[in-house]
Amino acid sequence: MEHDGPAQGYRRWALKIEYDGTGLVGWQRQNNGLSVQELLEKAASRLAGDAPVMSATAGRTDAGVHASAMVVQLDLPEQDRLDARQIRDGISFHLKPHRVAVLEAAPASKGWHARFSAISRRYRYTILNRPTRAVLNADHVWHVRRPLDEVAMHEAARTLLGRHDFSSFRAASCQASSPVRTLDCLNVTRDGMLIYLDVEARSFLHHQVRNLAGSLQLVGSGQWPIDKLRTVLDACDRRKAGPTAPPEGLCLVGVGYLQDPFA
Amino acid sequence: MEHDGPAQGYRRWALKIEYDGTGLVGWQRQNNGLSVQELLEKAASRLAGDAPVMSATAGRTDAGVHASAMVVQLDLPEQDRLDARQIRDGISFHLKPHRVAVLEAAPASKGWHARFSAISRRYRYTILNRPTRAVLNADHVWHVRRPLDEVAMHEAARTLLGRHDFSSFRAASCQASSPVRTLDCLNVTRDGMLIYLDVEARSFLHHQVRNLAGSLQLVGSGQWPIDKLRTVLDACDRRKAGPTAPPEGLCLVGVGYLQDPFA
Repeated sequence: MEHDGPAQGYRRWALKIEYDGTGLVGWQRQNNGLSVQELLEKAASRLAGDAPVMSATAGRTDAGVHASAMVVQLDLPEQDRLDARQIRDGISFHLKPHRVAVLEAAPASKGWHARFSAISRRYRYTILNRPTRAVLNADHVWHVRRPLDEVAMHEAARTLLGRHDFSSFRAASCQASSPVRTLDCLNVTRDGMLIYLDVEARSFLHHQVRNLAGSLQLVGSGQWPIDKLRTVLDACDRRKAGPTAPPEGLCLVGVGYLQDPFA
Repeated sequence: MEHDGPAQGYRRWALKIEYDGTGLVGWQRQNNGLSVQELLEKAASRLAGDAPVMSATAGRTDAGVHASAMVVQLDLPEQDRLDARQIRDGISFHLKPHRVAVLEAAPASKGWHARFSAISRRYRYTILNRPTRAVLNADHVWHVRRPLDEVAMHEAARTLLGRHDFSSFRAASCQASSPVRTLDCLNVTRDGMLIYLDVEARSFLHHQVRNLAGSLQLVGSGQWPIDKLRTVLDACDRRKAGPTAPPEGLCLVGVGYLQDPFA
């Protein structure tokens, strides 16, 4: 059904949204807490005179994971004749006081789907590498006390680029039909006490970025030699890889489409 | 008393601390809420077996204002014989779950005082300049919806550099004996949707940085011509200047001494 266009009498919009995942159960509606999807659909519904609205996302982030530029589709009643600015500001207004807001809105072109039309996803994973725990950026970094060698991490990361079976970095709960993915980018850089893992692929397995971060941290701290990461990849065995890094360090920073829906 | 050295049986330490001012009443102890000073002294006292401890700061930040590198002095009982690392980690531990922590600790040299030995203070004021309210950096920026011209703001800022009577940018509550201050640096730069005001002086009047930010914003939005800022300065009248910008955009980012106490 998600593949289809909007229902009769509805118009599809592309939204770029920002959210702080702290305290939320993630993108997808669940019974055990507040989700970004529920908050967004409720706010949009209020803007649309309480009519039902349907949404789908380019990526289903987990509990505690953030997004600075997630793209979602939202099917709104055609009759409302709201313009892009009214939708951006109106939904953002009704989303208060939650830390979710709409950055951009644009009418979707025919056949466009937030998830199935996406050709790339970009994530940034941030590590705070210092003795003292996080303060000003708590909830947005993974605090790693042991000094990390970001050059070694970057070198190890390069061995994972390209098309591989990523079973070693895949959560048991992953529902994808294939463990094969193509990693287009995995850069490790340092800015003072912050270490950034910037990663891009057409799509990711469940927990793939956090599992990569957890293993790269073992390389950075010297517990693993640089070439071990490739050995772990080749093993196709989740038990060979490092721990899953915590969600708060992860942020979805971009979604790519053949044609930018907001251009 | 603050000018004096530590009391008998006490040893003075220099601490570099980071704190998130959200929900706190500021540095100074007050009856109406939690202060950084109270949190820090209580945590240090617990580390020192509940002995009384005394602290003083290089700058008394207001409610809601943050610090990434505030310097404070802390007089601890000599007998405890704690080393710098134990003090840094021990106080940070007892400060949990509050968003205050110790980044560095070092024994103070004779005669050193966190406030009176300081020769410069650096602040950064951050504006989020976009239509949508702040989300991921809410509590750490001033959201200004109207587009701002940071080049005009920088040009106006330059006219305030040097030694002046800053009465126009001084809070009525300011207790300084003179309104004359020397502004050594006031740079306005943009990084995407963020505008930074980086300012440095030997010392500041109460609300001086926030009052400068409030007036610079009027220049940036085109409500004031660039040369009006100098006219307002020359008037020596608080009523001529713009509004006081909100505290959450302000962060103390550094304190200078002739000799770095942590070197």
